[in-house]
Amino acid sequence: MFELLRWLDLFGVIVFALSGALMAGRYKLDPFGVVVLSAVTAVGGGTIRDVILDTTVFWVADPIYLFVILMTAILTILIIRRPKRIPKRFLLIADAFGLALFAVLGTQKSLNLGAPIPVAIVMGTITGVAGGMIRDVLCNVIPMILRQEIYALAAMLGGCLFVVFHTFGLSENVSTICAIVGALKLRLAAIYWQVSLPAFHISEKEQ
Amino acid sequence: MFELLRWLDLFGVIVFALSGALMAGRYKLDPFGVVVLSAVTAVGGGTIRDVILDTTVFWVADPIYLFVILMTAILTILIIRRPKRIPKRFLLIADAFGLALFAVLGTQKSLNLGAPIPVAIVMGTITGVAGGMIRDVLCNVIPMILRQEIYALAAMLGGCLFVVFHTFGLSENVSTICAIVGALKLRLAAIYWQVSLPAFHISEKEQ
Amino acid sequence: MFELLRWLDLFGVIVFALSGALMAGRYKLDPFGVVVLSAVTAVGGGTIRDVILDTTVFWVADPIYLFVILMTAILTILIIRRPKRIPKRFLLIADAFGLALFAVLGTQKSLNLGAPIPVAIVMGTITGVAGGMIRDVLCNVIPMILRQEIYALAAMLGGCLFVVFHTFGLSENVSTICAIVGALKLRLAAIYWQVSLPAFHISEKEQ
Repeated sequence: MFELLRWLDLFGVIVFALSGALMAGRYKLDPFGVVVLSAVTAVGGGTIRDVILDTTVFWVADPIYLFVILMTAILTILIIRRPKRIPKRFLLIADAFGLALFAVLGTQKSLNLGAPIPVAIVMGTITGVAGGMIRDVLCNVIPMILRQEIYALAAMLGGCLFVVFHTFGLSENVSTICAIVGALKLRLAAIYWQVSLPAFHISEKEQ
Repeated sequence: MFELLRWLDLFGVIVFALSGALMAGRYKLDPFGVVVLSAVTAVGGGTIRDVILDTTVFWVADPIYLFVILMTAILTILIIRRPKRIPKRFLLIADAFGLALFAVLGTQKSLNLGAPIPVAIVMGTITGVAGGMIRDVLCNVIPMILRQEIYALAAMLGGCLFVVFHTFGLSENVSTICAIVGALKLRLAAIYWQVSLPAFHISEKEQ
Repeated sequence: MFELLRWLDLFGVIVFALSGALMAGRYKLDPFGVVVLSAVTAVGGGTIRDVILDTTVFWVADPIYLFVILMTAILTILIIRRPKRIPKRFLLIADAFGLALFAVLGTQKSLNLGAPIPVAIVMGTITGVAGGMIRDVLCNVIPMILRQEIYALAAMLGGCLFVVFHTFGLSENVSTICAIVGALKLRLAAIYWQVSLPAFHISEKEQ
């Protein structure tokens, strides 16, 4: 079981690092800037989670994550060697995988550390959305969560599904995978059909 | 006494959550995005304070804060049901209440945890300004603290007043309330009359 | 030895505080806003480092840093009393000094706290770049690290040089100074000749 979670976690780090590298390419960063943006995106959410829960930050405990990020950034640069036109959707899809994986794994880790259920779901949401948020803020782009395609909902759903499946007696492994698939499906569907929830809208008058 | 501080703290969380929800309305976020922006605004400052002081983060210790934020966001959405024109000043006033409350309560909590006075005042300022800062940065708006109407000064004043009142023998309760009223008055006056301190201005020449 | 590191550390705080104050001047902040932006720039990186390593945050342990920042901000305001045209390069150079100093000192502190080498170099990079990043994000400016003049590379080089020098038997003092000089030279040369590494560039097609 430990093995599966570890591989999922590394996969989440890879897809978020990829999304950071793709974003870096839009801004014509130099290779070291690409590495930094990949790293911030990939570890940002988990770092905030671990700091708030006052546990050892995962990439300090296990530097393998740093090497995986470095490799991902270098491979992205090498494979996309010269200016190419990459479909915009690639970044969105990589981000969606990271979102779903980290939201569920973050909830699970928090529960294992003894956090109450609502706190664990919030932690999962933070793990899923914070890395991408920092990536977007650094690039001066409005974070995806502030646009309308079912972003925060997908993250929260992932955490809630895990809690429900696990409470109803599914094994931790199965609960994790089902919850990830659920959150991912919702987010990908929202991207594909460009579905949004009805927006809350205030227009302002001066004064 | 404990009771009073608790209510003031919850009130601070409510007004900052409200300011986050109002800001979300400007950007036409979906309901889950509204909840996230409300939460970030309401707990951002206190979270940074608790992490730096290495104490348990307040909303992890007591998840009631999360429910209060959820309720505030939902009520804001329900009450302002359809696109309405809300006076811009509402957001500023909610923010001012949160600023004054959190600056004083943050200073007090830090002192109780044994921080030296200058550190406690800085912690109070962080508690008061950081949530709103994160809210504004996420929305790609220049943070209020970088505009000119006596924002940082009001936060620092709140912390200093608390220290002075408490040192001169007023009870913790009375000191807290007087300091909050002082900081709030200053900030509201600055908003009302649009008073600013003289600005520090550098114009730049290239090279 | 302790003394030397302490002075270098204070010097790093001063130059970053100066860079924050100069940036504040561009945005016509009031004096208290200048102090806040100076402080955030000067302590941001080290605060994140200490929080992640779960050690006491340096300016909580020793409030002298807060006074130094306050003095730097006040002196900057007093010396540049009226709107003046300051060469843009001043801000870049102050930032370069802070970057080199903090990257090396951050790596060293992390190693002394028992972090593995790759973690320590990442911590040094965070210490060097995060304060300036927060400063730029708050001012809604694209962070320097996302522009092209060898910024992230200089920070990483500083940490690596320290590790190499120290491993090859140079004393901690000498290693520190040589590494700082190396990182600083690289960054200043990049600013002076506007050298950049080849950029990684993706152009995007919609879809």
